[in-house]
Amino acid sequence: MPGIRGLLAYRPETAEPLMRLAEVLLRGDSTLSRGERELIAAFVSRGNECEYCAGSHGASAAALLPGGATQVAETLAGAPCDAPVSEKMRALLEIAGLVRADGRDVTAKAVADACSHGATDREIHDTVLIAAAFCMFNRYVDGLSAPVPDDPEQYAMSAVHLIRHGYQVPR
Amino acid sequence: MPGIRGLLAYRPETAEPLMRLAEVLLRGDSTLSRGERELIAAFVSRGNECEYCAGSHGASAAALLPGGATQVAETLAGAPCDAPVSEKMRALLEIAGLVRADGRDVTAKAVADACSHGATDREIHDTVLIAAAFCMFNRYVDGLSAPVPDDPEQYAMSAVHLIRHGYQVPR
Repeated sequence: MPGIRGLLAYRPETAEPLMRLAEVLLRGDSTLSRGERELIAAFVSRGNECEYCAGSHGASAAALLPGGATQVAETLAGAPCDAPVSEKMRALLEIAGLVRADGRDVTAKAVADACSHGATDREIHDTVLIAAAFCMFNRYVDGLSAPVPDDPEQYAMSAVHLIRHGYQVPR
Repeated sequence: MPGIRGLLAYRPETAEPLMRLAEVLLRGDSTLSRGERELIAAFVSRGNECEYCAGSHGASAAALLPGGATQVAETLAGAPCDAPVSEKMRALLEIAGLVRADGRDVTAKAVADACSHGATDREIHDTVLIAAAFCMFNRYVDGLSAPVPDDPEQYAMSAVHLIRHGYQVPR
């Protein structure tokens, strides 16, 4: 099984809380859309150069966002300030990028910018935790050299399954 | 509430899988002792300069390991190769430090070294996931500027509570 799936199958005791965390953060109740949250996950994973996570969460974001794969590719290719997303999402992506580098890099100005564009405390909290969680998932996948799919088309197929069934421990 | 505790109380839906993950990784069934696993968590947190996590998990490790606070302080102060721990633990701390920097930094040689000192696949898996998880916890705490206890003695008091009751969502 490619990417994180083989690791989850190897150790179900840790897989359960890991998948529960992903489910709550990326698909649970939120004023950020599922596509926006998958985009934050993909943006952080691209920053960490985790090919598997950037590919899989980028495919999910592309399937969920109105601008599809073009919107995702343009967002991941540049700085948050140039991303083809709302001003609130640009500010949240900026925070996610700071968290990715080091939690201490998040500035009061970055948080104030997000607030000024309408981000709520809960949206900022969840953005920080999504970014932090993907610093974990990326290191888990790459630290154990999990195999990457040969065919990039597999990411799109997995995204269809994920959107239908959610984050689950493989059985 | 200092450190991660205030964040957990703010968002119980994410706190539940976060505490479950910590409980399984640091206190669940394992051939690594609880003290050794707390030491890995403290070592990664010190590397990420997360004062709260290094303080709290360092205090737990000190309460659990035979060498106490001296053993923890000496381990956190230097390179894994100089740490006053078993050769297997030195090799696992080396892997944890590589994961902390970037999952892709883990080399076949680092894994082979750990195996040659008796580390099992499961111990290596769990070391990678503990290190990755603390890259998340550290960023979560610092990214949201969680307050640090004024009195360092609080870490030792919290460790006593933690060792008795485990990782739980604050209520």
